[in-house]
Amino acid sequence: MRDAIFYQIFPDRFARSLSVPKSNHLDEWGSPPTYNGYQGGDLAGVAERLDYLRDLGVNAVYFTPVFQSASNHRYHTHDYEKVDPMLGGDAALRRLIDCAHARGMRVVLDGVFNHASRGFFQFHDILENGSDSAYLDWFNVSQFPLNAYHPDQPPNYQAWWNLPALPKFNIKCDAVREFLLSVAVRWIEFGIDGWRLDVANEIDDDGFWRAFRQRVRQANPDAYIVGEVWTDSEHWLQGDMWDAVMNYQFTRACVAYFIGDRVEKSELERTSLHPVGPKGAEAFAKSIQRLHGLYAPEVTAVMLNLLGSHDTARFVSLARGDFSALRLASLFQMTYPGAPSIYYGDEIGMQGGHDPANRGAFPWHKTDSWDVDLLRYFQRLTSLRTSRKALRRGSFRVLHAAGDVFAHARKLGDDVVVVIFNAGTSTQRLDLPVHDQAADGVELTDPWSHQGAQIDAGMIRGLELAPRSGTVLATRLNS
Amino acid sequence: MRDAIFYQIFPDRFARSLSVPKSNHLDEWGSPPTYNGYQGGDLAGVAERLDYLRDLGVNAVYFTPVFQSASNHRYHTHDYEKVDPMLGGDAALRRLIDCAHARGMRVVLDGVFNHASRGFFQFHDILENGSDSAYLDWFNVSQFPLNAYHPDQPPNYQAWWNLPALPKFNIKCDAVREFLLSVAVRWIEFGIDGWRLDVANEIDDDGFWRAFRQRVRQANPDAYIVGEVWTDSEHWLQGDMWDAVMNYQFTRACVAYFIGDRVEKSELERTSLHPVGPKGAEAFAKSIQRLHGLYAPEVTAVMLNLLGSHDTARFVSLARGDFSALRLASLFQMTYPGAPSIYYGDEIGMQGGHDPANRGAFPWHKTDSWDVDLLRYFQRLTSLRTSRKALRRGSFRVLHAAGDVFAHARKLGDDVVVVIFNAGTSTQRLDLPVHDQAADGVELTDPWSHQGAQIDAGMIRGLELAPRSGTVLATRLNS
Repeated sequence: MRDAIFYQIFPDRFARSLSVPKSNHLDEWGSPPTYNGYQGGDLAGVAERLDYLRDLGVNAVYFTPVFQSASNHRYHTHDYEKVDPMLGGDAALRRLIDCAHARGMRVVLDGVFNHASRGFFQFHDILENGSDSAYLDWFNVSQFPLNAYHPDQPPNYQAWWNLPALPKFNIKCDAVREFLLSVAVRWIEFGIDGWRLDVANEIDDDGFWRAFRQRVRQANPDAYIVGEVWTDSEHWLQGDMWDAVMNYQFTRACVAYFIGDRVEKSELERTSLHPVGPKGAEAFAKSIQRLHGLYAPEVTAVMLNLLGSHDTARFVSLARGDFSALRLASLFQMTYPGAPSIYYGDEIGMQGGHDPANRGAFPWHKTDSWDVDLLRYFQRLTSLRTSRKALRRGSFRVLHAAGDVFAHARKLGDDVVVVIFNAGTSTQRLDLPVHDQAADGVELTDPWSHQGAQIDAGMIRGLELAPRSGTVLATRLNS
Repeated sequence: MRDAIFYQIFPDRFARSLSVPKSNHLDEWGSPPTYNGYQGGDLAGVAERLDYLRDLGVNAVYFTPVFQSASNHRYHTHDYEKVDPMLGGDAALRRLIDCAHARGMRVVLDGVFNHASRGFFQFHDILENGSDSAYLDWFNVSQFPLNAYHPDQPPNYQAWWNLPALPKFNIKCDAVREFLLSVAVRWIEFGIDGWRLDVANEIDDDGFWRAFRQRVRQANPDAYIVGEVWTDSEHWLQGDMWDAVMNYQFTRACVAYFIGDRVEKSELERTSLHPVGPKGAEAFAKSIQRLHGLYAPEVTAVMLNLLGSHDTARFVSLARGDFSALRLASLFQMTYPGAPSIYYGDEIGMQGGHDPANRGAFPWHKTDSWDVDLLRYFQRLTSLRTSRKALRRGSFRVLHAAGDVFAHARKLGDDVVVVIFNAGTSTQRLDLPVHDQAADGVELTDPWSHQGAQIDAGMIRGLELAPRSGTVLATRLNS
């Protein structure tokens, strides 16, 4: 995954294929998203759009859940052993994986292993049979009958956030462990390339996660295991449990610096990113350097670096529609160590606040709404990352951090990429020290404008940084 | 199915295999059955007992439902596309079918297509999403939210017997029809030999049943389709829908004559057989002749003739433990046209009244409780039927019916089997007219005692019939 660029897809909202029979009771594609309504995206639709993703420059797709679920986000798993029929069922996933692999793209699925849903078979058995159920030890029940559908009472069983819809698995039960491990292996054997693990820190059982890693890696030694944790995650990233986490610490730093005081506070407060205060370049550098030192290099190299997800307002909406914030942050994301992840639609300028607004339908039906300049910009960024091994495998160093201006460098052998951000609203002039990156006389050029700058006495002198802009200067590629 | 002898198995209670991992929360095998408790029988257990069934002389097994269900009887289908994990899952059914077919035995499954369960995915989606569900048209809902788990209110959706646990499918919905038909075909393609259709008359849609027959027969031209209907069923047995029905009219006649006034009324009243008054031989003959004339011969030849099922008290328990009633009725069943069906355990003398008592665990663990004489008797009956083509394919004729004594004959070419019943409690003497069955001078012998009787002037004279006994007299087999 050191070379991965992810694209995160919310399957109900990315693309619909005519090949998948659909219900008559769907919301219209592109209508304002609701908490419970389906718009009918499917995996065959994704397979049909893989060329778009290839052209965007991504080489890995991370899907929010795809298994049979009575919720449009599919986090309420009804059956872990079936792709949802509305998504096209197992056959559609088969085709998607095959088409993706044929293009060198990897597919990562979302595993919701902390809790099931009220409709999940073994929980349903307790709901139906009470203390006569054969599956009593699968969940922690305090009383019978279960009050799973009582509008006024808290659930009389352990549930995620005390939500009756989401009964928490009893991970101490051998049958539960074996079931979840078998699910993990089943889909790896089916052909997926890794698991994103929903609220993974809430399964407080290192033995389970070690067994998980062992079984998954046995089935596919290259499988990627990325946990959802919103805070520091050293505990799980020692090499015996997961490979990486969803890097929301990275997101926080980007919000603080690239959005700064432009942030839409009401939206920020509704995310688990909150609190995030605005930060200047120095504080940003501190956050990033801390984060960069937090994990072993092989972990940092595969962290899932994201600017947003189905669980946050879209980055540009957090920035009250300021696309410069998204451009700057994306440039940072694509030039920083780790696996960048683009939340579907960010690249064409989709906006949307807190769930459900951040889960709009991708406007294939309304291409005139696309921000084509932004899309080209994203394509340039992914192309830069893909063509520059230093951006994927090189060292990372902060070169400058003061006021509004931050600069860092990536270096692998003679290949050097320097990136400079001016997050402020006025033009800045800068002399940038690069003596530990390249020798005097080396020319660094902007890969797009081809404007060059010569290193002189360890410095690039006289850089002029337009307001809210990023600059890339790189050694010439040996081609 | 003209040569079939069925054995009906209630999978939770027939046999447990050590090869299937089991929950810690099962009732003990052989403990008094309860409405909700599981005893943990499985299909691997059945596969391991197929030699017992072969030795018993059966060549077809009809299973009450095996699909994933949160009920020990599995009529509350949670997933039509999965064999219940407690039964060993799809793999166990695979093995069972393969082992059965290797012994020339057929496997018929129970399809519950009239209604689903509360946990069934598309119903659960309505439960979770209300009017935003994508599956609104799968069921008939009068109000949101569904009150599926409200203890005091009748369901606000159409349900079988108004039971909230059993939402009735909207068979008018194309997606529902296609789903149910695809399920029917899926398992036929998997290898089953037919479908028993639960409460089939309640799916009031001939077009559906015609399509069902067409799709199932396309997948397997020999597949057997037998509906559950407790009354006259001409409507569905014209050749375009089903092949046969569960012949509870046959059961009623047998209860009336062979049990007669011995019947345990409180048990009878709890069955859907009720009312059944006691009948002498003449009235029995009338019932049977009416029944025999009700359907086309090719239908009569494959009717599922049963003395009891999971839905009735066991026959011997209806008879207050009078095993002579079971022996007489079984002799009639095994010598009458149609496919006899033995309810598991009847052959070793298991007793049990109304559900759940009639669903006891087969006592493999307590063989000293078996009525071995009865078992031998059943083996003799199946052997008689199997060795005598006249009993399977021959004509049927009532020879005598008066007082307590009833006699019938089956004839195919020169092969004749005469069966005489004395349902009374005193010895009877009888001269039996058989002139239309065999010529004078032909010797008929009891196939077990080998005692003979010569036909003289069209009669068998001086038959002495012990109380509550049956007599078989047959032409010598050309061997």
